[in-house]
Amino acid sequence: MNFFEIIEKRYSHKGRFLSTPVPREKLVQIASAGLSAPTGMNLQCVKLVILPDRQAVQPLCDIAPTEGTLTAPAAIVVFTDKTTQNWKMDFQIEDYSAATENMLLAATALGYVALWLDSPYFPADKQKALCDLLNAPANYQLRTVIPIGLPDGECLKREKMPFDERVWFGEFS
Amino acid sequence: MNFFEIIEKRYSHKGRFLSTPVPREKLVQIASAGLSAPTGMNLQCVKLVILPDRQAVQPLCDIAPTEGTLTAPAAIVVFTDKTTQNWKMDFQIEDYSAATENMLLAATALGYVALWLDSPYFPADKQKALCDLLNAPANYQLRTVIPIGLPDGECLKREKMPFDERVWFGEFS
Repeated sequence: MNFFEIIEKRYSHKGRFLSTPVPREKLVQIASAGLSAPTGMNLQCVKLVILPDRQAVQPLCDIAPTEGTLTAPAAIVVFTDKTTQNWKMDFQIEDYSAATENMLLAATALGYVALWLDSPYFPADKQKALCDLLNAPANYQLRTVIPIGLPDGECLKREKMPFDERVWFGEFS
Repeated sequence: MNFFEIIEKRYSHKGRFLSTPVPREKLVQIASAGLSAPTGMNLQCVKLVILPDRQAVQPLCDIAPTEGTLTAPAAIVVFTDKTTQNWKMDFQIEDYSAATENMLLAATALGYVALWLDSPYFPADKQKALCDLLNAPANYQLRTVIPIGLPDGECLKREKMPFDERVWFGEFS
Protein backbone atom coordinates (compact mmCIF):
# COMPACT_ATOMS: atom_id res chain seq x y z
CA MET A 1 0.00 0.00 0.00
CA ASN A 2 1.26 3.46 -0.76
CA PHE A 3 0.76 6.36 1.64
CA PHE A 4 -2.55 7.55 0.21
CA GLU A 5 -3.94 4.02 0.22
CA ILE A 6 -3.09 3.77 3.92
CA ILE A 7 -4.74 7.13 4.62
CA GLU A 8 -7.83 5.91 2.78
CA LYS A 9 -7.85 2.44 4.37
CA ARG A 10 -7.58 3.57 8.01
CA TYR A 11 -10.89 3.40 9.82
CA SER A 12 -12.18 3.18 13.39
CA HIS A 13 -12.49 -0.52 14.10
CA LYS A 14 -15.42 -0.78 16.50
CA GLY A 15 -15.82 -4.54 16.16
CA ARG A 16 -14.07 -7.54 17.66
CA PHE A 17 -10.44 -8.55 17.17
CA LEU A 18 -8.92 -11.96 16.45
CA SER A 19 -6.78 -13.35 19.25
CA THR A 20 -3.68 -13.45 16.97
CA PRO A 21 -0.91 -11.69 18.91
CA VAL A 22 0.74 -8.53 17.60
CA PRO A 23 4.52 -9.12 17.66
CA ARG A 24 6.41 -6.89 20.03
CA GLU A 25 8.52 -5.37 17.23
CA LYS A 26 5.37 -4.28 15.42
CA LEU A 27 4.11 -2.57 18.58
CA VAL A 28 7.46 -0.82 18.90
CA GLN A 29 7.19 0.31 15.28
CA ILE A 30 3.69 1.68 15.89
CA ALA A 31 4.75 3.45 19.10
CA SER A 32 7.81 4.89 17.34
CA ALA A 33 5.57 6.36 14.66
CA GLY A 34 3.61 8.04 17.45
CA LEU A 35 6.75 9.58 18.90
CA SER A 36 7.67 10.95 15.46
CA ALA A 37 4.57 13.17 15.38
CA PRO A 38 5.01 16.93 15.63
CA THR A 39 4.92 18.31 19.16
CA GLY A 40 4.29 21.91 20.19
CA MET A 41 7.51 23.71 21.15
CA ASN A 42 9.20 20.28 20.83
CA LEU A 43 8.11 19.53 24.41
CA GLN A 44 7.29 15.88 23.63
CA CYS A 45 4.69 15.61 26.35
CA VAL A 46 3.25 12.36 24.96
CA LYS A 47 4.10 9.18 26.90
CA LEU A 48 2.98 5.68 25.92
CA VAL A 49 2.35 2.41 27.67
CA ILE A 50 2.30 -0.62 25.39
CA LEU A 51 0.03 -3.43 26.58
CA PRO A 52 1.56 -6.28 24.60
CA ASP A 53 -0.81 -9.18 25.24
CA ARG A 54 -4.37 -10.07 26.16
CA GLN A 55 -3.65 -10.25 29.88
CA ALA A 56 -2.18 -6.76 29.85
CA VAL A 57 -5.14 -5.41 27.85
CA GLN A 58 -7.78 -6.94 30.13
CA PRO A 59 -7.93 -4.05 32.67
CA LEU A 60 -9.02 -1.68 29.88
CA CYS A 61 -12.39 -3.44 29.94
CA ASP A 62 -13.10 -1.70 33.24
CA ILE A 63 -12.91 1.79 31.79
CA ALA A 64 -14.36 0.97 28.39
CA PRO A 65 -16.06 -2.43 28.03
CA THR A 66 -16.21 -2.33 24.24
CA GLU A 67 -15.86 -5.13 21.71
CA GLY A 68 -12.38 -3.79 21.08
CA THR A 69 -11.06 -3.82 24.63
CA LEU A 70 -12.81 -7.13 25.34
CA THR A 71 -11.00 -8.93 22.52
CA ALA A 72 -7.89 -6.99 21.40
CA PRO A 73 -4.58 -8.86 21.69
CA ALA A 74 -2.66 -5.62 22.26
CA ALA A 75 -3.19 -1.93 22.97
CA ILE A 76 -1.32 1.30 23.46
CA VAL A 77 -2.35 3.71 26.21
CA VAL A 78 -1.57 7.37 25.54
CA PHE A 79 -0.73 9.82 28.32
CA THR A 80 0.49 13.41 28.38
CA ASP A 81 2.77 14.93 30.98
CA LYS A 82 0.71 17.86 32.29
CA THR A 83 3.78 19.69 33.57
CA THR A 84 5.34 20.22 30.14
CA GLN A 85 4.59 23.78 29.08
CA ASN A 86 6.42 26.94 28.07
CA TRP A 87 5.28 30.54 28.37
CA LYS A 88 2.04 29.26 29.92
CA MET A 89 1.15 27.62 26.60
CA ASP A 90 0.78 23.95 26.01
CA PHE A 91 -0.33 21.82 23.12
CA GLN A 92 -1.10 18.59 24.91
CA ILE A 93 -4.32 17.76 23.08
CA GLU A 94 -2.77 18.66 19.73
CA ASP A 95 0.29 16.55 20.53
CA TYR A 96 -1.46 13.40 21.66
CA SER A 97 -3.89 13.65 18.76
CA ALA A 98 -1.13 13.88 16.16
CA ALA A 99 0.72 11.01 17.87
CA THR A 100 -2.46 8.92 18.00
CA GLU A 101 -3.18 9.51 14.32
CA ASN A 102 0.37 8.46 13.44
CA MET A 103 -0.11 5.24 15.41
CA LEU A 104 -3.47 4.48 13.77
CA LEU A 105 -1.88 4.95 10.35
CA ALA A 106 1.16 2.88 11.33
CA ALA A 107 -1.09 0.04 12.51
CA THR A 108 -2.94 0.22 9.18
CA ALA A 109 0.35 0.22 7.26
CA LEU A 110 1.32 -3.00 9.06
CA GLY A 111 -1.99 -4.69 8.22
CA TYR A 112 -3.70 -4.20 11.58
CA VAL A 113 -6.82 -2.32 12.59
CA ALA A 114 -7.14 -0.04 15.58
CA LEU A 115 -9.47 2.36 17.35
CA TRP A 116 -9.08 5.77 19.03
CA LEU A 117 -10.98 5.42 22.33
CA ASP A 118 -10.85 8.86 23.89
CA SER A 119 -10.80 9.47 27.63
CA PRO A 120 -13.82 11.83 27.87
CA TYR A 121 -15.86 8.64 27.45
CA PHE A 122 -14.28 6.97 30.50
CA PRO A 123 -15.73 7.43 34.02
CA ALA A 124 -13.36 9.50 36.19
CA ASP A 125 -13.04 6.90 38.95
CA LYS A 126 -12.20 4.19 36.43
CA GLN A 127 -9.54 6.41 34.86
CA LYS A 128 -7.97 6.89 38.26
CA ALA A 129 -7.98 3.13 38.85
CA LEU A 130 -6.31 2.47 35.49
CA CYS A 131 -3.66 5.13 36.12
CA ASP A 132 -2.92 3.52 39.49
CA LEU A 133 -2.75 0.06 37.94
CA LEU A 134 -0.30 1.28 35.29
CA ASN A 135 1.72 3.05 37.95
CA ALA A 136 1.32 6.41 36.16
CA PRO A 137 3.08 9.40 37.73
CA ALA A 138 0.60 11.90 39.24
CA ASN A 139 1.40 14.47 36.55
CA TYR A 140 0.55 12.12 33.69
CA GLN A 141 -2.95 12.44 32.26
CA LEU A 142 -4.68 9.50 30.59
CA ARG A 143 -5.73 10.56 27.10
CA THR A 144 -6.51 7.67 24.81
CA VAL A 145 -6.64 3.91 24.60
CA ILE A 146 -5.84 2.28 21.26
CA PRO A 147 -6.78 -1.42 20.89
CA ILE A 148 -4.74 -2.97 18.06
CA GLY A 149 -4.93 -6.30 16.23
CA LEU A 150 -6.42 -8.17 13.32
CA PRO A 151 -10.16 -7.69 12.74
CA ASP A 152 -12.61 -10.47 13.54
CA GLY A 153 -14.97 -9.84 10.64
CA GLU A 154 -15.84 -6.83 8.54
CA CYS A 155 -16.46 -3.46 10.06
CA LEU A 156 -17.95 -0.65 8.03
CA LYS A 157 -16.08 2.58 7.53
CA ARG A 158 -18.31 5.51 8.32
CA GLU A 159 -19.31 7.87 5.54
CA LYS A 160 -17.60 11.20 5.10
CA MET A 161 -19.16 14.42 3.83
CA PRO A 162 -18.28 15.38 0.25
CA PHE A 163 -15.03 17.31 -0.35
CA ASP A 164 -16.93 20.40 -1.55
CA GLU A 165 -18.74 20.73 1.77
CA ARG A 166 -15.48 20.88 3.74
CA VAL A 167 -12.92 22.52 1.47
CA TRP A 168 -12.86 25.90 -0.28
CA PHE A 169 -10.36 27.60 -2.57
CA GLY A 170 -9.18 31.10 -1.70
CA GLU A 171 -12.06 31.91 0.64
CA PHE A 172 -15.35 30.56 1.97
CA SER A 173 -18.19 31.06 -0.47
CA MET B 1 9.21 6.31 0.20
CA ASN B 2 7.26 3.79 2.21
CA PHE B 3 4.95 4.84 5.04
CA PHE B 4 7.56 4.66 7.82
CA GLU B 5 10.06 6.63 5.74
CA ILE B 6 7.45 9.37 5.33
CA ILE B 7 6.74 9.37 9.07
CA GLU B 8 10.46 9.69 9.71
CA LYS B 9 11.06 12.32 7.03
CA ARG B 10 8.28 14.74 8.07
CA TYR B 11 9.60 17.72 9.98
CA SER B 12 8.53 21.26 10.81
CA HIS B 13 9.96 23.41 8.03
CA LYS B 14 10.70 26.73 9.70
CA GLY B 15 12.81 28.08 6.84
CA ARG B 16 12.03 29.71 3.50
CA PHE B 17 10.26 28.11 0.55
CA LEU B 18 11.11 28.17 -3.14
CA SER B 19 8.61 30.04 -5.30
CA THR B 20 7.84 26.88 -7.33
CA PRO B 21 4.04 26.57 -7.36
CA VAL B 22 2.26 23.56 -5.82
CA PRO B 23 -0.12 22.19 -8.48
CA ARG B 24 -3.78 22.43 -7.58
CA GLU B 25 -4.29 18.67 -7.79
CA LYS B 26 -1.53 18.13 -5.21
CA LEU B 27 -3.22 20.59 -2.84
CA VAL B 28 -6.49 18.72 -3.34
CA GLN B 29 -4.71 15.45 -2.55
CA ILE B 30 -3.24 16.95 0.64
CA ALA B 31 -6.59 18.42 1.72
CA SER B 32 -8.33 15.10 0.99
CA ALA B 33 -5.86 13.34 3.27
CA GLY B 34 -6.86 15.82 5.97
CA LEU B 35 -10.53 15.02 5.53
CA SER B 36 -9.77 11.30 5.86
CA ALA B 37 -8.55 11.72 9.43
CA PRO B 38 -10.65 10.29 12.25
CA THR B 39 -13.20 12.68 13.70
CA GLY B 40 -14.95 12.43 17.07
CA MET B 41 -18.50 11.08 16.77
CA ASN B 42 -18.00 11.39 12.98
CA LEU B 43 -18.98 15.07 13.27
CA GLN B 44 -16.38 16.20 10.72
CA CYS B 45 -16.03 19.67 12.21
CA VAL B 46 -12.80 20.42 10.27
CA LYS B 47 -13.13 22.84 7.35
CA LEU B 48 -10.27 23.88 5.07
CA VAL B 49 -9.43 26.85 2.90
CA ILE B 50 -6.75 26.17 0.29
CA LEU B 51 -4.64 29.22 -0.59
CA PRO B 52 -3.32 28.02 -3.94
CA ASP B 53 -0.78 30.70 -4.89
CA ARG B 54 1.53 33.34 -3.49
CA GLN B 55 -1.03 36.14 -3.76
CA ALA B 56 -3.56 34.11 -1.78
CA VAL B 57 -0.94 33.26 0.88
CA GLN B 58 0.25 36.86 1.33
CA PRO B 59 -2.39 37.87 3.96
CA LEU B 60 -1.05 35.17 6.29
CA CYS B 61 2.00 37.36 6.83
CA ASP B 62 -0.18 39.70 8.89
CA ILE B 63 -0.99 37.08 11.52
CA ALA B 64 2.34 35.26 11.42
CA PRO B 65 5.19 37.01 9.61
CA THR B 66 7.46 33.97 9.49
CA GLU B 67 9.89 32.86 6.81
CA GLY B 68 7.27 30.30 5.85
CA THR B 69 4.32 32.61 5.33
CA LEU B 70 6.56 35.23 3.69
CA THR B 71 7.71 32.84 0.97
CA ALA B 72 5.37 29.83 0.68
CA PRO B 73 3.73 29.33 -2.72
CA ALA B 74 0.67 27.71 -1.15
CA ALA B 75 -0.99 27.10 2.20
CA ILE B 76 -3.97 25.44 3.80
CA VAL B 77 -5.89 27.19 6.56
CA VAL B 78 -7.64 24.90 9.04
CA PHE B 79 -10.89 25.85 10.77
CA THR B 80 -13.32 23.99 12.99
CA ASP B 81 -17.06 24.53 13.11
CA LYS B 82 -17.69 25.37 16.77
CA THR B 83 -21.35 24.36 16.59
CA THR B 84 -20.67 20.68 15.87
CA GLN B 85 -21.09 18.79 19.10
CA ASN B 86 -23.14 15.96 20.55
CA TRP B 87 -24.11 15.31 24.15
CA LYS B 88 -22.17 18.47 25.12
CA MET B 89 -18.93 16.78 24.05
CA ASP B 90 -16.75 17.89 21.22
CA PHE B 91 -13.39 16.83 19.89
CA GLN B 92 -12.49 19.87 17.84
CA ILE B 93 -8.84 20.09 18.88
CA GLU B 94 -8.38 16.36 18.47
CA ASP B 95 -10.04 16.50 15.05
CA TYR B 96 -8.11 19.39 13.57
CA SER B 97 -4.86 17.99 14.97
CA ALA B 98 -5.37 14.58 13.37
CA ALA B 99 -6.39 16.27 10.10
CA THR B 100 -3.36 18.56 10.24
CA GLU B 101 -1.01 15.65 10.85
CA ASN B 102 -2.49 13.79 7.88
CA MET B 103 -1.88 16.86 5.69
CA LEU B 104 1.72 17.27 6.88
CA LEU B 105 2.38 13.62 6.09
CA ALA B 106 0.62 13.89 2.73
CA ALA B 107 2.73 16.93 1.80
CA THR B 108 5.85 14.95 2.76
CA ALA B 109 4.69 11.95 0.72
CA LEU B 110 4.39 14.23 -2.33
CA GLY B 111 7.89 15.65 -1.87
CA TYR B 112 6.93 18.94 -0.23
CA VAL B 113 7.68 20.38 3.19
CA ALA B 114 5.19 22.09 5.47
CA LEU B 115 4.73 23.62 8.89
CA TRP B 116 2.00 23.49 11.55
CA LEU B 117 1.57 27.14 12.64
CA ASP B 118 -0.92 27.04 15.47
CA SER B 119 -3.38 29.83 16.22
CA PRO B 120 -2.47 30.42 19.91
CA TYR B 121 0.58 32.19 18.45
CA PHE B 122 -1.55 34.63 16.41
CA PRO B 123 -2.77 37.95 17.90
CA ALA B 124 -6.56 37.87 18.38
CA ASP B 125 -7.25 40.99 16.29
CA LYS B 126 -5.19 39.62 13.40
CA GLN B 127 -7.08 36.33 13.58
CA LYS B 128 -10.35 38.21 13.29
CA ALA B 129 -9.04 40.16 10.29
CA LEU B 130 -7.97 36.95 8.55
CA CYS B 131 -11.31 35.27 9.24
CA ASP B 132 -13.06 38.31 7.75
CA LEU B 133 -10.80 38.32 4.71
CA LEU B 134 -11.48 34.62 4.10
CA ASN B 135 -15.19 35.22 4.58
CA ALA B 136 -15.34 32.66 7.39
CA PRO B 137 -18.76 32.00 8.95
CA ALA B 138 -19.02 33.35 12.52
CA ASN B 139 -19.14 29.83 13.95
CA TYR B 140 -15.87 28.79 12.31
CA GLN B 141 -12.76 29.01 14.47
CA LEU B 142 -9.32 29.55 12.95
CA ARG B 143 -7.06 26.76 14.15
CA THR B 144 -3.93 26.35 12.08
CA VAL B 145 -2.09 27.68 9.08
CA ILE B 146 0.00 25.24 7.03
CA PRO B 147 2.47 26.77 4.53
CA ILE B 148 3.39 24.20 1.87
CA GLY B 149 6.00 24.06 -0.87
CA LEU B 150 9.54 23.08 -1.74
CA PRO B 151 12.25 24.04 0.77
CA ASP B 152 14.69 26.83 -0.04
CA GLY B 153 17.71 25.27 1.62
CA GLU B 154 18.21 22.79 4.40
CA CYS B 155 16.29 22.98 7.63
CA LEU B 156 17.26 20.91 10.61
CA LYS B 157 14.86 18.42 12.13
CA ARG B 158 14.68 18.92 15.88
CA GLU B 159 15.93 16.18 18.13
CA LYS B 160 13.57 13.79 19.84
CA MET B 161 13.97 12.21 23.25
CA PRO B 162 14.99 8.52 23.26
CA PHE B 163 12.27 5.88 22.91
CA ASP B 164 12.93 4.53 26.42
CA GLU B 165 12.11 7.90 27.99
CA ARG B 166 8.67 8.02 26.39
CA VAL B 167 7.49 4.43 26.06
CA TRP B 168 6.99 1.69 28.66
CA PHE B 169 5.84 -1.93 28.42
CA GLY B 170 2.99 -3.09 30.66
CA GLU B 171 3.26 -0.24 33.15
CA PHE B 172 5.36 2.80 34.04
CA SER B 173 8.50 1.87 35.91
